[in-house]
Amino acid sequence: MNLEQTLRERLDAKTKPIGSLGRLEDLAVQLGVALGTDEPSLDHPQMIVFAGDHGVAAAHGVSAYPRDVTWQMVKNILAGGAAVSVLARQHGIALTVVDCGVDHDFAPQPGLVLRKVTPGTADSTQGPAMTAAECAQAIQHGREVVRALPGNAVLLGELGIGNTSAASLLCAALAGCTLDDCVGPGTGLDAAGVLRKRGVLQRALELHKHASEPLQVLAAYGGFEIAAMVGAIQQAAQERRVVVVDGFISTSAVLVAHAVDPKVLPSCVFSHRSGERGHELMLRHLGAKPLLDLGLRLGEGSGAALAWPLLVSACLIMRDMATFESARVSGKTP
Amino acid sequence: MNLEQTLRERLDAKTKPIGSLGRLEDLAVQLGVALGTDEPSLDHPQMIVFAGDHGVAAAHGVSAYPRDVTWQMVKNILAGGAAVSVLARQHGIALTVVDCGVDHDFAPQPGLVLRKVTPGTADSTQGPAMTAAECAQAIQHGREVVRALPGNAVLLGELGIGNTSAASLLCAALAGCTLDDCVGPGTGLDAAGVLRKRGVLQRALELHKHASEPLQVLAAYGGFEIAAMVGAIQQAAQERRVVVVDGFISTSAVLVAHAVDPKVLPSCVFSHRSGERGHELMLRHLGAKPLLDLGLRLGEGSGAALAWPLLVSACLIMRDMATFESARVSGKTP
Repeated sequence: MNLEQTLRERLDAKTKPIGSLGRLEDLAVQLGVALGTDEPSLDHPQMIVFAGDHGVAAAHGVSAYPRDVTWQMVKNILAGGAAVSVLARQHGIALTVVDCGVDHDFAPQPGLVLRKVTPGTADSTQGPAMTAAECAQAIQHGREVVRALPGNAVLLGELGIGNTSAASLLCAALAGCTLDDCVGPGTGLDAAGVLRKRGVLQRALELHKHASEPLQVLAAYGGFEIAAMVGAIQQAAQERRVVVVDGFISTSAVLVAHAVDPKVLPSCVFSHRSGERGHELMLRHLGAKPLLDLGLRLGEGSGAALAWPLLVSACLIMRDMATFESARVSGKTP
Repeated sequence: MNLEQTLRERLDAKTKPIGSLGRLEDLAVQLGVALGTDEPSLDHPQMIVFAGDHGVAAAHGVSAYPRDVTWQMVKNILAGGAAVSVLARQHGIALTVVDCGVDHDFAPQPGLVLRKVTPGTADSTQGPAMTAAECAQAIQHGREVVRALPGNAVLLGELGIGNTSAASLLCAALAGCTLDDCVGPGTGLDAAGVLRKRGVLQRALELHKHASEPLQVLAAYGGFEIAAMVGAIQQAAQERRVVVVDGFISTSAVLVAHAVDPKVLPSCVFSHRSGERGHELMLRHLGAKPLLDLGLRLGEGSGAALAWPLLVSACLIMRDMATFESARVSGKTP
């Protein structure tokens, strides 16, 4: 009997009608298989917020917010005032911010890991956002950050003014969507802004239409924080850690990691369906069913943090519930 | 400016694009209004599992499980082995089981409140499940249980072999559904079992077709645990406590309480959309949007417990997030 069957049988012996905990049961089985145990338990969860700036945003104003917001929000997260700070604190999740390529010089401080490649990617409408070497370096940084942290669960967060643009381009290139399908308002563009953004991204897509290898596509569109997430996913899956995926941006990193090697996918738990246009298409491409559907579109890892207690519940159901036999509860009427 | 506007403005000043926390923002506003404060905070949450037996189940075998499972599961919950026990423990939610009318003599024990009306309702295909006096007594018991417990949040749980039958009948009578719409497998009937159950319930519905007042309808179909939940909802709303509604059965209690007085509704948070057929129709009748949609159909309050951390998150977002001004983060590009 393989591990998945063992886990299903354990659940079916618990004092509940078979399957009555719905998707929580599938989650419990997934976590057991991902962690390689029939007694799944999550320890030292790590929220890692990968931050980077985007040349396409600087050059073309494709975001509703100015570029400075990236570094300002890094400070806000570290000071404990951002949504992800509040939610990570609620759930006892350790929080690390990684400067993957922010256009700002940060002084060292606790909780901040400095792994800047350059202060922001290049404009992807003019050339690749990253050179192949820069892209490889950012991926490596993501791997190193995960390797250095304890625990068996990584929650992916991200921050970067302009990064819905990069994610939309990755979605178009890797999930076979049209830009109409996958360009949305991001942090809050109006209809005219979305149209302008779509035009800018169309030029980038034209320029890089011959990019076919996943890492070539990633280098074409950026960003550094997405590349670092790709490395983080690869490292976590390799170490049999669970990866909790947030929304549109972090799912774009899964698209890349999956295109490189689909074997990362069983380690990934998709926390929510984002309100950002195109996320549903990414999820469908990956065959992923997210846990929550609350119209979230904040990023930072906020959706991953909100879904986190469901993962803990799934493990507890598997480990701590009584069985019909142990609790002396009668089974179904024959 | 009214409280709802104040709460919306507070949220809009937080360091996030406006509306980007989606339904969590609506929840934060609802909780603030329900609790009557712009600093919503939940304390001493109480999971109350109301238990009762059903005459219709005893007489006609409309459940996949034998009647003894009701009292056996009361003991399992109190011993800490049921799903709701595990989930309440995870979230620090106090757990009380109320014997509203279980066919078993329980010895007194911590966590168990004895408020038995009779050892199970009468068969609703032969007459009313409860007399008017019994129904009033069960409602009063629910009120007293809430009044005696501390805190400002009540999570509704329930237990009772046969209670999806009672809930389906309440749904048909109060939400204008046909039995075809609202009779499902409950704890796990097969297709033939569902057909038989539907036939039995059709007879009950015929018999009581002239019942029109909400409490007359409730008395017609039972059960004691549903009536006690009606009282609990009324008492909690009156004391400005938040009520976290679980699935099909506890929503049927909201149907009754709402029919008596629609003003209870703003106090109710609907935790999830159940996998049990008919729940969606009840929710639609109430104009309710549940938080989770995980195919749960266990009852016990398990869905309410799973959604609980989202309520806590909503309050924390309102109270603890920084504002653009306090965190010195730039606003939207003009």
